Amino acid sequence: MKKALVTGGAGFLGSHLSARLLADGYEVTAVDNLFTGTKENIYPLLGNPRFSFVLHDVTQPFWGQFDEIYNLACPASPVHYQHNPVETLKSSVLGMMNMLDLALKTKAKVLHTSTSEVYGDPLVHPQVESYWGNVNTIGVRSCYDEGKRCAETLAADYRRAHGVDVRLVRIFNTYGPNMHPEDGRVISNFILQALRNEDITIYGDGSQTRSFQYCDDLVEAMRRYMELPRGKVDAFFAAKNLGAPVINTGNPGEYTVRQLAEETLKLIPESKSKLVSRPLPADDPRRRRPDISLAKELLGWEPKVPLAEGLAKTIDYFRAREKSAAGR
Amino acid sequence: MKKALVTGGAGFLGSHLSARLLADGYEVTAVDNLFTGTKENIYPLLGNPRFSFVLHDVTQPFWGQFDEIYNLACPASPVHYQHNPVETLKSSVLGMMNMLDLALKTKAKVLHTSTSEVYGDPLVHPQVESYWGNVNTIGVRSCYDEGKRCAETLAADYRRAHGVDVRLVRIFNTYGPNMHPEDGRVISNFILQALRNEDITIYGDGSQTRSFQYCDDLVEAMRRYMELPRGKVDAFFAAKNLGAPVINTGNPGEYTVRQLAEETLKLIPESKSKLVSRPLPADDPRRRRPDISLAKELLGWEPKVPLAEGLAKTIDYFRAREKSAAGR
Repeated sequence: MKKALVTGGAGFLGSHLSARLLADGYEVTAVDNLFTGTKENIYPLLGNPRFSFVLHDVTQPFWGQFDEIYNLACPASPVHYQHNPVETLKSSVLGMMNMLDLALKTKAKVLHTSTSEVYGDPLVHPQVESYWGNVNTIGVRSCYDEGKRCAETLAADYRRAHGVDVRLVRIFNTYGPNMHPEDGRVISNFILQALRNEDITIYGDGSQTRSFQYCDDLVEAMRRYMELPRGKVDAFFAAKNLGAPVINTGNPGEYTVRQLAEETLKLIPESKSKLVSRPLPADDPRRRRPDISLAKELLGWEPKVPLAEGLAKTIDYFRAREKSAAGR
Repeated sequence: MKKALVTGGAGFLGSHLSARLLADGYEVTAVDNLFTGTKENIYPLLGNPRFSFVLHDVTQPFWGQFDEIYNLACPASPVHYQHNPVETLKSSVLGMMNMLDLALKTKAKVLHTSTSEVYGDPLVHPQVESYWGNVNTIGVRSCYDEGKRCAETLAADYRRAHGVDVRLVRIFNTYGPNMHPEDGRVISNFILQALRNEDITIYGDGSQTRSFQYCDDLVEAMRRYMELPRGKVDAFFAAKNLGAPVINTGNPGEYTVRQLAEETLKLIPESKSKLVSRPLPADDPRRRRPDISLAKELLGWEPKVPLAEGLAKTIDYFRAREKSAAGR
């Protein structure tokens, strides 16, 4: 039986990936320091004898024997990653070092989750993997952006210099059940406002666009990527002249923020919420949209879940959560 | 008596800074793992009772009580920093963490030496501190560039979140005695070729320009910067709206590579070397030139040593070195 380690395994994406790996027949160890992850996200998995949870902070070394390491640990939303910027950077950089050292010792494969934030405030649209990005080294977002960039560099060098089989995905905006309700993302904000009959706040005129990838689509891409034989990955990326195996995963479909709000209200017909406009903040995230040609070519993958379907599942999740909170 | 710690203290710049701090009346502890630094660089200092050398690798914690920490440790030329890319990155990132942790524990001030390489292949000329740079995260130079960028991020966040008094300099091309003879830099290459009567190799037509800062000018800037009261530094940079106190130091004067070769030969009249042209390599460093307005305004500093004078001192150093090697 194959053994997988999932760091950040009690987080939004880690919990979905852990569930999928169990469904695929793996023995799964999820580690998490529970800063943004929660036991609640993995309640459904805890009864499975092939699942273990270890409370562990990836800034410290972790040893064990695994075939595959999925490195997801890192606070990912500004409200969380700015809570303790030094620890955020350490979770990216030391976490990556510790996982690469574990891989070096045990010959495990590694799939590391990087982010569209490595492109920063991009000067190229849509973003391709060969774009180097436009990132401030000393700003308030830098702990996340530069920590993630530095983790990519470590991955590329452990691979080039020490032969570690490591693969990188740069994840664009992703949503679904188990999203942290307080992380300030537009989808969870809109859903919670609608369920609570509060005003739905749109910044600016709402014509700015976003792209939204449903979590199951991302997990599918990660599993396909990890399943590929190393020789195929190496040959593919050698021909692409990139310094490391890296693919974007995201949904290139663009929606305006106003469309998203209207779609959300349509799916919560009982809501009494109204759309209200607020001035656009100075640092409102710029438009970012993935070019997913590489993932398509390498994995035969593209996102399948339409926004309405993913949104409905996410609403179901938050509805149940609100009910259970009200019943307590 | 003030106590200073100099990491990379047996290296090219560290040895000059240590000598200057001794001259300024400090008690100086130089730490170095001697990967590119050498005991030879600090022979003249070893007899001074206010000087100590500690063989230590900054990727490991280091404890002691100092008023000022000058963090210089990191291999700085491609031939050295690509020797072991993972260790290069660790010396930047873990070295910075260890020094910031030491500062946090002891309330020491920190001056960290960053580099013009954080600008990468710049799209803005000359480079100003507010420029975010253009750097590849996964290429063969990334271990240095991204390691140095990540160290800046750590410095900015230890300062913002934990109050550490840390100041950053981004150093542009610098030369002088104690440069490593094998580090492949154009000045040491030309001088050694001229002294050895070998052909002086110019890549391309030699019209590409470089800027060259003499080591004493840099050391002067670093000392002035560290001497400033914290309140003055904080107020200056708050008004500049940069995320951290960071200044470029370099010599904005530009010389063509051919001019440098001719100047070198003029100062070594006994040389039988001839200039020869070779094709320009694909990755020849792009033009990079510092904007030093901030350093001028904050420190009242600008480079003073003319190229001919600095070059003559550097030639004296290499001449003595070649003679002593021949005598062995």
